[in-house]
Amino acid sequence: MIGPYQLLGHNKKYVMDNSLLTVSWEDGKVVMIDQTKLPKKLEYVKYTKYQDIAKAIKRLIIRGAPAIGVAAAFGLCLASFQSKAGSTAELLSDMEIAYTLLRGTRPTAVNLVWALDLVMKKAREGNSVNQIRKGILDYSLKIAQDDVSTNKKLGKYGAELINDGEVVLTHCNAGSLATVAYGTALGVIRAARKSGKEVRVIATETRPVMQGSRLTAFELKHDGIDVCLIPDTAVGYVMSQKMISRVIVGADRVLRTGHVFNKIGTYQVAVMANRHMIPFYVAAPMSTFDLESDIGDIVIEQRDAREILQVGNRVITPKGVDVLNPAFDITPPELIAGIITEEGILQPPFKKNFKYIKGR
Amino acid sequence: MIGPYQLLGHNKKYVMDNSLLTVSWEDGKVVMIDQTKLPKKLEYVKYTKYQDIAKAIKRLIIRGAPAIGVAAAFGLCLASFQSKAGSTAELLSDMEIAYTLLRGTRPTAVNLVWALDLVMKKAREGNSVNQIRKGILDYSLKIAQDDVSTNKKLGKYGAELINDGEVVLTHCNAGSLATVAYGTALGVIRAARKSGKEVRVIATETRPVMQGSRLTAFELKHDGIDVCLIPDTAVGYVMSQKMISRVIVGADRVLRTGHVFNKIGTYQVAVMANRHMIPFYVAAPMSTFDLESDIGDIVIEQRDAREILQVGNRVITPKGVDVLNPAFDITPPELIAGIITEEGILQPPFKKNFKYIKGR
Repeated sequence: MIGPYQLLGHNKKYVMDNSLLTVSWEDGKVVMIDQTKLPKKLEYVKYTKYQDIAKAIKRLIIRGAPAIGVAAAFGLCLASFQSKAGSTAELLSDMEIAYTLLRGTRPTAVNLVWALDLVMKKAREGNSVNQIRKGILDYSLKIAQDDVSTNKKLGKYGAELINDGEVVLTHCNAGSLATVAYGTALGVIRAARKSGKEVRVIATETRPVMQGSRLTAFELKHDGIDVCLIPDTAVGYVMSQKMISRVIVGADRVLRTGHVFNKIGTYQVAVMANRHMIPFYVAAPMSTFDLESDIGDIVIEQRDAREILQVGNRVITPKGVDVLNPAFDITPPELIAGIITEEGILQPPFKKNFKYIKGR
Repeated sequence: MIGPYQLLGHNKKYVMDNSLLTVSWEDGKVVMIDQTKLPKKLEYVKYTKYQDIAKAIKRLIIRGAPAIGVAAAFGLCLASFQSKAGSTAELLSDMEIAYTLLRGTRPTAVNLVWALDLVMKKAREGNSVNQIRKGILDYSLKIAQDDVSTNKKLGKYGAELINDGEVVLTHCNAGSLATVAYGTALGVIRAARKSGKEVRVIATETRPVMQGSRLTAFELKHDGIDVCLIPDTAVGYVMSQKMISRVIVGADRVLRTGHVFNKIGTYQVAVMANRHMIPFYVAAPMSTFDLESDIGDIVIEQRDAREILQVGNRVITPKGVDVLNPAFDITPPELIAGIITEEGILQPPFKKNFKYIKGR
């Protein structure tokens, strides 16, 4: 087991303060927190095969759009080391197989494809097997390190929105555990706290996988940030009781129209916020933006019925009951007050304002 | 263990078809399904002390506004038999103690107070200890039997609303398990099916106590009615996918303004239905109406944090995390298309239309 101060690779101590490090590269291995064990155990797992990275993503050992992007990039690095290729063509061919497997693990988060495509592009630039291996590892480490600095920039922009004493509702986990470290939505909370503001968090449990109860509550407690859990059914109640001043959630994919794909339940949180005139913000790095696709192009992942039928290994439902278990929903732009990115806060109308975002 | 064909008392076989009988009186004992054991085991418990009825209500062995009303009435009957009173005054005094305990078990459902008050009124009419005992038992049995006939009438009115092939979303359990038998919201489904219409149900899990997964799914499967479970977070998704034609829920208390107190999460289901122009109906017997109180008078029960912190005995959250666990929320009248009662369907404006309800 490695601690939260673990190196992010290259023997260069990364500035992690006291934060959790979700995924890292260490001596030819991909190291990640096994999030299925949280909050009971903070356990790190090490992988040397890309196939195991694919399984880890599928089984939610690692989850969160930015984190699975980095994990998949490291997965391609493992594939390059696993390959016995004697030529760059053979290596690229082996990596294509790994690419396909990794890409197929989860369909909705765009960061997965984004990171995989970047690494494959980098690989194609190499002139020898070893040059490719070194090139994509350096590049993947950079993606991982950029993730943290991106989150810190994003957090700083977001923190400016927040007033002292606010109570922010968040859904699912868009925290350090959804990224390499620091987090997006929870990065905003961290940055606001760092700037001296008192901020408290109300976290939804987030059925069925309970990322709120297990992960958001865990990492906020870990950092000494005040957090209160509510069932997903109580969102309307706490809003009607005027307990919430702002909502901040993450995103798995943001379209150019401003439609946000995020954890199932986000849409209804946004509708409730709208009804109660509570500003609803999305925090997402530019790597989560998909400016090419239309809504109809995006597959909403349907997950295993067992997530609903049982808790742990304990079946809680009658035998043979049907289940619908979509992992994501779509929040339309008219419900969103702004999208917090590392390049600033995107205000509506999003479609028009995308062009003011640097480099677009 | 007694079967679903069990007598409701007085050796008179009650017309139960194949339905579950939630609570009944049998040879000086109150018999109820232990709903905390569902769906794993259909287990009946028998009580001879009113104190145990109070515990059973508090621990959700029995729940659902109409069912706890009947259980509490039977609880007073037990108290009258437990009492060693030699005079009617002594008996009434003993019953007052039981009344206070039973009334304090849960604050939000009005049927509890309604049934207790009726039985106490009946008790005060008696001229001897034994006359009181017999009088309130007969009367409580009538309340129980009336509950079923009320639900059947209510169901018939509600069934007229429903078109062949509808998919109805329901929240929590307003079924036979929330009443003596047949149910309110699910009574409407049963009546629609009986009249030859095909109706399918999408049931929310209903965190934290999972009445949807455990009870609604169980009783609909038991009756051969098609049911599909979704997490509470997926209400917006299924509505946006146009999978729902109508919402029908129960109620724990309906005010003269048309404000409906019901299971936590009902309010946001109503808001989502409103956004998607899906008619949202409440099914509630007249015993659930409280025409005296104002919103501010009603206590929203806050339940044990353990319902959120653990599933069964397994803790799923980090140590020391704060929790907010309100059991009910308030749906305002502007979100409600109609309230289905045994005296007809109340249409908005509710406050004005109450006077057309028979006997008001």
